[in-house]
Amino acid sequence: MRILIVGASGTIGKRVAVALEPNHEVIRAGRNGADVSVDTTSHESITEMYEKIGYIDAVINASGGANFKAVPDLTPELNEKGIASKLKGQINLVLLGQGYVKDGGSFTLTTGIMMDDPIPLGASAAMANGGVKAFVKASSIEMPRGIRINCVSPNVVQESWDRLGDLFAGFNPVPADRVARAYVKSVEGAQTGKNYEVY
Amino acid sequence: MRILIVGASGTIGKRVAVALEPNHEVIRAGRNGADVSVDTTSHESITEMYEKIGYIDAVINASGGANFKAVPDLTPELNEKGIASKLKGQINLVLLGQGYVKDGGSFTLTTGIMMDDPIPLGASAAMANGGVKAFVKASSIEMPRGIRINCVSPNVVQESWDRLGDLFAGFNPVPADRVARAYVKSVEGAQTGKNYEVY
Ligand SMILES: NC(=O)c1ccc[n+]([C@@H]2O[C@H](COP(=O)([O-])OP(=O)(O)OC[C@H]3O[C@@H](n4cnc5c(N)ncnc54)[C@H](OP(=O)(O)O)[C@@H]3O)[C@@H](O)[C@H]2O)c1
Ligand SMILES: NC(=O)c1ccc[n+]([C@@H]2O[C@H](COP(=O)([O-])OP(=O)(O)OC[C@H]3O[C@@H](n4cnc5c(N)ncnc54)[C@H](OP(=O)(O)O)[C@@H]3O)[C@@H](O)[C@H]2O)c1
Repeated sequence: MRILIVGASGTIGKRVAVALEPNHEVIRAGRNGADVSVDTTSHESITEMYEKIGYIDAVINASGGANFKAVPDLTPELNEKGIASKLKGQINLVLLGQGYVKDGGSFTLTTGIMMDDPIPLGASAAMANGGVKAFVKASSIEMPRGIRINCVSPNVVQESWDRLGDLFAGFNPVPADRVARAYVKSVEGAQTGKNYEVY
Repeated sequence: MRILIVGASGTIGKRVAVALEPNHEVIRAGRNGADVSVDTTSHESITEMYEKIGYIDAVINASGGANFKAVPDLTPELNEKGIASKLKGQINLVLLGQGYVKDGGSFTLTTGIMMDDPIPLGASAAMANGGVKAFVKASSIEMPRGIRINCVSPNVVQESWDRLGDLFAGFNPVPADRVARAYVKSVEGAQTGKNYEVY
């Protein structure tokens, strides 16, 4: 298959690419993407990317950020980053990309454990994750031409523990390779509307 | 208690007001609110409302809309209504209102069954519902001064069946009075971080 990975240079995206490239053609995207550049917070940039690469079988997104702030310090303005990037960035990859995905192809987005197992400072990211999960479930019943859509909800990964461990007290981090397998299941399997929890 | 209801003139909000007013002081809000006017899609309007009414014990929101469109016809622009109104409208009532709610007070927001039991045309509304549910769960662990936060997820209500029944084929509508009881539970009870399903 011809597979686009947005966020292919990231901690998770890198492992997803490694897991897929033995059997597929992988196109690496990101703001500084190795094969094509895209900023998911811009409609124009998303459409330009799809125009450049043409038809694909699968779109994977492993990008998206949010501000980490305690609720008393979270303003509508600070909450906007999660909405623009983690929520709309992912959903717009689907809305603007559905015409470029071949019959029976797939989208795979990324959520995260903190929507199910809340951590301090995580409300904005959790909000975006919950919105993506619900969108995936709801949109799966009416995607055109047999296109499937799923998301992967990673626990904090071992490779990010130095950077994120303080936020995830008592969590049991998982290897990014294990997370990558869920993206492979989404792309090569036949399920739709799922949120694969890798906890 | 002194309780603000945003959307108090609506199908659901009206019943919530009826259920609460025997025992509480109810302040009715909406764009054409009986007691105070607010447009939840505007930060300024939300802050103005809180400034006008002063301290309250509880904030209930029973307002919020989204476009009903099939995924192939859903554009980022059409999806924006659900984000501005059903998602950010509700969350900004919390972010901008937390300073006006008394110690131990509460917020109660509104989600909906379609995030759990998807219907055609419902992806945008489901996305917003899922975002609100996850925000409520995550924010509940760090609300200031013992303030609680919950949401109510109504099934389609009998009183809206003429208007919405076509979208909810095979659903078993519930009386709005039953939905109203969940808001009462949220306000008068002691739980936090819940999404009360009235299915
Ligand atoms: N790491 C974890 O433990 C963990 C756990 C649960 C969920 N997640 C979620 O999984 C996703 C990936 O996490 P990660 O740790 O792998 O991230 P990461 O290492 O920070 O990598 C992010 C990737 O996304 C790209 N990117 C960032 N902003 C972008 C934008 N606006 N448009 C397009 N591409 C963009 C980056 O490349 P450029 O810089 O070239 O744009 C990079 O390839 C995130 O949504 C994260 O919240 C991560
Ligand atoms: N009805 C159902 O079967 C059902 C089922 C599940 C979930 N829900 C959800 O429950 C909520 C209420 O539904 P409903 O059927 O009761 O709605 P409704 O009858 O249409 O009433 C909406 C209420 O919200 C107010 N409102 C609308 N836009 C507003 C804005 N931008 N700012 C402030 N107030 C605003 C309206 O008053 P003004 O016109 O004066 O602003 C009115 O009081 C919605 O989020 C809906 O999606 C409804």
